[in-house]
Amino acid sequence: MPWNTNDPQINSWLPVPENSDFPIQNIPFGVFLTRDDIITIGTRIGDHAIDLGALHQLGYFEGIPLTDDIFLQDTLNDFISDGKKTWRLVRNRISEIFDVENKTLQQNDDHRNTVLFSMDEIEMQLPVQIGDYTDFYSSKEHATNVGSMFRDPDKALMPNWLHIPVGYHGRSSTIVPSGTPIRRPKGQTLPKGADTPVFGPSKRVDFELEMAFITTDANVLGEPVPIDEAEDYIFGLVLFNDWSARDIQKWEYVPLGPFLAKNFASSISPWIVTLDALEPFRVQSPTQHPTPLPYLQQKGLHSFDIKLEVAITPENGQPNTVSRSNFKFMYWTMAQQLAHHTINGCKINSGDMLGSGTISGSTPDSYGSMLELAWQGTKPIQLSDGSKRSFIEDNDTVIMRGYCEKDGMRIGFGEVSTKLLPAFTNK
Amino acid sequence: MPWNTNDPQINSWLPVPENSDFPIQNIPFGVFLTRDDIITIGTRIGDHAIDLGALHQLGYFEGIPLTDDIFLQDTLNDFISDGKKTWRLVRNRISEIFDVENKTLQQNDDHRNTVLFSMDEIEMQLPVQIGDYTDFYSSKEHATNVGSMFRDPDKALMPNWLHIPVGYHGRSSTIVPSGTPIRRPKGQTLPKGADTPVFGPSKRVDFELEMAFITTDANVLGEPVPIDEAEDYIFGLVLFNDWSARDIQKWEYVPLGPFLAKNFASSISPWIVTLDALEPFRVQSPTQHPTPLPYLQQKGLHSFDIKLEVAITPENGQPNTVSRSNFKFMYWTMAQQLAHHTINGCKINSGDMLGSGTISGSTPDSYGSMLELAWQGTKPIQLSDGSKRSFIEDNDTVIMRGYCEKDGMRIGFGEVSTKLLPAFTNK
Repeated sequence: MPWNTNDPQINSWLPVPENSDFPIQNIPFGVFLTRDDIITIGTRIGDHAIDLGALHQLGYFEGIPLTDDIFLQDTLNDFISDGKKTWRLVRNRISEIFDVENKTLQQNDDHRNTVLFSMDEIEMQLPVQIGDYTDFYSSKEHATNVGSMFRDPDKALMPNWLHIPVGYHGRSSTIVPSGTPIRRPKGQTLPKGADTPVFGPSKRVDFELEMAFITTDANVLGEPVPIDEAEDYIFGLVLFNDWSARDIQKWEYVPLGPFLAKNFASSISPWIVTLDALEPFRVQSPTQHPTPLPYLQQKGLHSFDIKLEVAITPENGQPNTVSRSNFKFMYWTMAQQLAHHTINGCKINSGDMLGSGTISGSTPDSYGSMLELAWQGTKPIQLSDGSKRSFIEDNDTVIMRGYCEKDGMRIGFGEVSTKLLPAFTNK
Repeated sequence: MPWNTNDPQINSWLPVPENSDFPIQNIPFGVFLTRDDIITIGTRIGDHAIDLGALHQLGYFEGIPLTDDIFLQDTLNDFISDGKKTWRLVRNRISEIFDVENKTLQQNDDHRNTVLFSMDEIEMQLPVQIGDYTDFYSSKEHATNVGSMFRDPDKALMPNWLHIPVGYHGRSSTIVPSGTPIRRPKGQTLPKGADTPVFGPSKRVDFELEMAFITTDANVLGEPVPIDEAEDYIFGLVLFNDWSARDIQKWEYVPLGPFLAKNFASSISPWIVTLDALEPFRVQSPTQHPTPLPYLQQKGLHSFDIKLEVAITPENGQPNTVSRSNFKFMYWTMAQQLAHHTINGCKINSGDMLGSGTISGSTPDSYGSMLELAWQGTKPIQLSDGSKRSFIEDNDTVIMRGYCEKDGMRIGFGEVSTKLLPAFTNK
């Protein structure tokens, strides 16, 4: 029987704390700065980071077709370009190396000291150079909530929404990893009742609870990716906080879409969890009425049961969980998003990132943004320190977490945690 | 007196044909594949391409702080990162080397044979790796025309248009250099009177006559670029054809903006003409009423008198000029676009590209798209072969040209020429 990396029975010789997101069945990929200030590609088991560059130099990936420097890079782009077969071979090999029965690395002190780091001595980086970033709008509940507030409750969903996984282009240059603080943006907003805009810091900075997937090279310019092949080009997923300034957005977004309201910053979790690791957690996506056009039709299980939550931590305060949602609520699947994105021949490259759009559930405690949770400021949320939030305040930290759980196995994403600093001021 | 590269009196020892876009006063930058299949950074005088990598190796840039391999690269990004002072030193040095009075290279047969190529033996490449691409919507005439057709003639301009240089994010992965054929995109469209979409090749493929500027690293995340500094971060400009599928656009674009209607392809001219080379052609931009907010206010001459034209060449046919416009018609300047783009702290990197939006003038023969020229198909354009065009047909080639002219000096962009192939079919 071939090695099954997803087998819940496998245990690692590295310690894995209870409820860790990173058992030996996960094996995510990331990029980190080591204690010696060297950038390398790595993975994580429990609270240990593993230097794949060093592991490869020591010969542990022998037999797998990899260039010598494939892990000695500051992004995963080239490794992702190697394709699904290679990712699988590497992930399976890592599983074998760290299996409790395997003594090779386990009993080699020198090698162990070279490849292992504790999480608190490394610094996680952005895992990929994101060439293009697209954001979708694929939660029906979110689109309905926003349409009700910004437009008309009776026509909340636009006529195209049930036919198209609506998406738009975002900004790659301002995507930062968890832990990077961001600044409240300034910009133009239109005060209620006014007909000329004013300038100043946004008063309505919001998070959007999303996930995003990272692709490999999927096609050549002009040729679509058929929906049945789409998942082959998905390397893995991260948690994604699509920061938004609602007041800037409202004034700027007609007719060409959100721009400065979004591109001041977006935050991602640093470990990319592969689609292979999520395999045991496949579930059916919501039934689609009307049936989409043939290029968007698919059979089988193409969503994933990923529990999501958002917490707000005020300065010097405690975390307050404000939302609990699930990736499986998404109306359009990742495969549908990718098939749609390429139906016109748009080229998808290694390291491109496709965001889900805000993932809201049907109940008010599962909404994926403050806009919806506090319903445009009409229902402020009470925090444990007695303060209230309609939007995010200066020096608040927003933390998103996500994990799958089944048959005693938990595969998680860690977190994306971001502090909102006050607006930039010239001195 | 310091050397003045823009001096119309300077002549090159290289031949420059009459009406060439590339006299010694231009000195654009590009990337090309040589006859030996080597990628290098180069410039152009008349019909000669000049290998700057070879010129640098031969010592001709001595005294200028450049790394050894700065021109031996497949993109200009690193050179652009070196900043305005360095670009100027290099451009001035090239001017001196090729000045008719300078015998050094002129009389060195070996060196000349190494660095010079005729244009027909090289292959122009994309000049930069475009990290992020933003498209603006800065021609008042174009926005008014489109607003009249797609929405309401009485409210053609949105309330934000006179306050904001409206922009949105585009797709970098599908930007191709002049000469790369593209395919008619397929997608969803809503037939007139129908309430469900159909699928098929777009029936309304259009060009958009634009220019785009390429930036250098301008700021750190969170900090705006003041408008008075904005031009320091502009390396140069190219011609830009923002291909658009009008029928796909109409169905998909509400509420998050154009997506598949644009991202199937965009085409640029391969030589980046520096802002320095355009200096003699500065003109006043249109008066702005109302006065924009302070962060968008500027004094002086911040537009450029660049004559633009578009021709359509049917398969086996002759070119037909269908539009004559000018970059100076733009309501918002490049500096205003860049100041606006960063007012929220959005990070601008070396190699980012910012498109002007379609540049239409006030007369019907100066409109920058077929949508406007043929007014949504109601006034088809007659070509010299007797055929008519409301939009672009399969196997048509669209050619855009641009140049400045003053006091007998002409500085031009060459052309961006793109053939539209039929839609992709699976066999």
